Amino acid sequence: MREGKLFVLVIGTTDVSLVPGITLAGATPELTHFTPAADAEYLLTGETRSLRGVPITPSGLPTPALISRASLSLLKLPTLIANAGSRIAPRIPYVELGGSHGRDIRRGAMETGTMEILLKRGKELGSSLSSVEEIIIGESIPGGTTTAMATLLGLGYDALGKVSSTAPNNPMELKEKLVLDAVKTAPKAIESRIAWLADPVLIAVAGISIGFLGRKVLAGGTQMLAAAALIKNFAGTLEKVEVRTTKWVVEDHTADFQGLATQVGVKTSYASLNLSKSRFPGLRAYEEGYVKEGVGAGALSLEAMSAHGEETLLKAIDREYERLLH
Amino acid sequence: MREGKLFVLVIGTTDVSLVPGITLAGATPELTHFTPAADAEYLLTGETRSLRGVPITPSGLPTPALISRASLSLLKLPTLIANAGSRIAPRIPYVELGGSHGRDIRRGAMETGTMEILLKRGKELGSSLSSVEEIIIGESIPGGTTTAMATLLGLGYDALGKVSSTAPNNPMELKEKLVLDAVKTAPKAIESRIAWLADPVLIAVAGISIGFLGRKVLAGGTQMLAAAALIKNFAGTLEKVEVRTTKWVVEDHTADFQGLATQVGVKTSYASLNLSKSRFPGLRAYEEGYVKEGVGAGALSLEAMSAHGEETLLKAIDREYERLLH
Repeated sequence: MREGKLFVLVIGTTDVSLVPGITLAGATPELTHFTPAADAEYLLTGETRSLRGVPITPSGLPTPALISRASLSLLKLPTLIANAGSRIAPRIPYVELGGSHGRDIRRGAMETGTMEILLKRGKELGSSLSSVEEIIIGESIPGGTTTAMATLLGLGYDALGKVSSTAPNNPMELKEKLVLDAVKTAPKAIESRIAWLADPVLIAVAGISIGFLGRKVLAGGTQMLAAAALIKNFAGTLEKVEVRTTKWVVEDHTADFQGLATQVGVKTSYASLNLSKSRFPGLRAYEEGYVKEGVGAGALSLEAMSAHGEETLLKAIDREYERLLH
Repeated sequence: MREGKLFVLVIGTTDVSLVPGITLAGATPELTHFTPAADAEYLLTGETRSLRGVPITPSGLPTPALISRASLSLLKLPTLIANAGSRIAPRIPYVELGGSHGRDIRRGAMETGTMEILLKRGKELGSSLSSVEEIIIGESIPGGTTTAMATLLGLGYDALGKVSSTAPNNPMELKEKLVLDAVKTAPKAIESRIAWLADPVLIAVAGISIGFLGRKVLAGGTQMLAAAALIKNFAGTLEKVEVRTTKWVVEDHTADFQGLATQVGVKTSYASLNLSKSRFPGLRAYEEGYVKEGVGAGALSLEAMSAHGEETLLKAIDREYERLLH
């Protein structure tokens, strides 16, 4: 295997994404539930089956899976899809982790038993892949920054108003109100508290990382900081763990990626990919703070740029977008 | 990844295994349906969840997964479980391929549509892993040599009375009668014919191999010759395909592994692992023609012996059996 690396995309849904305005990761709140399955299908096969076309924001901006797929086309990393708990199962081969979709965190995301199974199966998957040197773990879960904020807050971090967003105007008030409502109703015991406030993807990412023996790159923004906090909680260490994201997340002034990372105590890095010269307005909009991250776009584009240069990657991204439009 | 290799265990069930006397891959005919799930659980975690203890023959001989697990403990290959269609789903992380369990081939193993999905998802899984240099594909499906005979016969090969068995006294008359009954009722059109006569594992193994771009080692005995025949049928070529098994299959005089391989036109090799000096009678029985192969035992033991020597492997196998007994 080239460089001994493997990419695992963990997908899931949380009913938090149904709250109008909370996420742009889908054309409508209802369609956000199709985004993870469609992201996975598109990443693996180049086409979507659970959705007509790739996932888009309400204004038509394409999923960051486009950047990930273009990067993977250069990197040729073996790729696995893991289903942590999605209302819509992808119509491709995927690793079933035995979880279930995340419910609204104001009424409890999942049973403690479900969380335990997901954590266990995640560890087993990580362990079974352990001869690879490095695992890059991406995520697709609309509403995931809100559950990340709730999880971090529940674990005692100062996370209120510090997570990022798919929108340039982070709907922070809406998120904060929902998160505070959830934290208020959450049980006090730490395991039950996490099960109440998190989402299936966060748990599975933590499990896979804990089970995997090599280097673990958590490919995402503030959501992956919450996953790192869970790893620290469950395994007591963040050795060999790094969160790798995009400059769009790092530079998001409506959030505080670096401050949160310092609190959690996890190493970070980011890709400086610049889409302002893309031929497509839908991609140039990323430079205005839309979308920002997802499906491992940051880590994969950093990897692709290191190996092949930014020019080559930009061409691959534009080529891929062109293919999608026709 | 070490040596750029990956092991995929494909599991499934066929209702053929419920016919009394047709297979020893389970303590009773009914328990054969638990063998693939338990093999997978044991291989990945060292313990079984769907069955108490590892799968055994009616006389108590242990599953060849024991040899595979001991080999993998030396090789440290990344390992995936793929579910082609098993009545019992394993309680570990596994890749879901969207098939279904194989029905009795006298009444048709599966719908043509099911076979097409399984073939497609198999190809997609193979394709998504294609940056690995070599994929080793094992199987666990009790009754699989009977469906292999039916499939080969259905494809026009002279396979009657030539497949191997878990029993030293190959129940060939029973198998032949069942296979001839199945072939008699099977449709004539080739795709429908295969769907009628095969089992989900054969289809999935063929799909994964076709989708994977590197070297494909089909790790098994006469069942994998049937998988190779399917690859030839669906993809027109056996380039980069090799069937790798145990000496117990090659030396099985109740079958004709080499003759069948020549007919199919696929390269073969085998492991000369000798268990006659094992401390355990349950393992020495392999030298008397019991069990013979399964869960990739031949290919994995060959790989482990090449890398670490037979002595080291034998010790690892005995150590693993000892662990199981206590």
